[in-house]
Amino acid sequence: METSVYAKDCPSRQILDRIGDTWSVLVVVMLADGAHRYTELAKRIEGVSPKMLTQTLRGLERDGLISRTVHPVVPPRVDYALTSLGQSLYGLVEGLEKWAEAHIDDVQAARVAYDSGV
Amino acid sequence: METSVYAKDCPSRQILDRIGDTWSVLVVVMLADGAHRYTELAKRIEGVSPKMLTQTLRGLERDGLISRTVHPVVPPRVDYALTSLGQSLYGLVEGLEKWAEAHIDDVQAARVAYDSGV
Repeated sequence: METSVYAKDCPSRQILDRIGDTWSVLVVVMLADGAHRYTELAKRIEGVSPKMLTQTLRGLERDGLISRTVHPVVPPRVDYALTSLGQSLYGLVEGLEKWAEAHIDDVQAARVAYDSGV
Repeated sequence: METSVYAKDCPSRQILDRIGDTWSVLVVVMLADGAHRYTELAKRIEGVSPKMLTQTLRGLERDGLISRTVHPVVPPRVDYALTSLGQSLYGLVEGLEKWAEAHIDDVQAARVAYDSGV
């Protein structure tokens, strides 16, 4: 099968779904600084529910983008960190984050024009 | 307000949702070649429903990323094209597409390992 994100059954389509997902982007960018605990991620990523954060972390771990390390201390401590595969993605998703932050005014102006029927 | 995709009410968060969306990525990458008609987009982007494609195009147009041109011919012809804002996004989303296509094997191997509990 030809590799193409345009083909609905190509695995690259599924991967694109994962790496474009907003929560995944926010986790990957945050872990680029170094390992973080679940509670740190939950605090920084405003608006994410515990269920959604857990699902996002499991999905990223399953796809080999992050690692999960359980430290044998009391109480147990769990750290999440980028794998080398996750690091290779980081430059791209950081670009998306920066683009979104840099173009707020352009996008908002476009929305106002569109909504007023101009 | 500080601009941060981590803040749940920051407009950049909404923009990140749009530009990470798989259908939006596929439309933007396809329009980088030049203007295309609705029917061409629908044919190339396998698995997208007409409703979802229409919503995606409206969202991209509202955000100023694509333009919609109605040609006064019979039957009417409607072309979609990237705006300069959309072009500025293209390099980033193309990177996501290429990454997804290039790392299928890595991600699939990670999934097999995860699912087998290794």
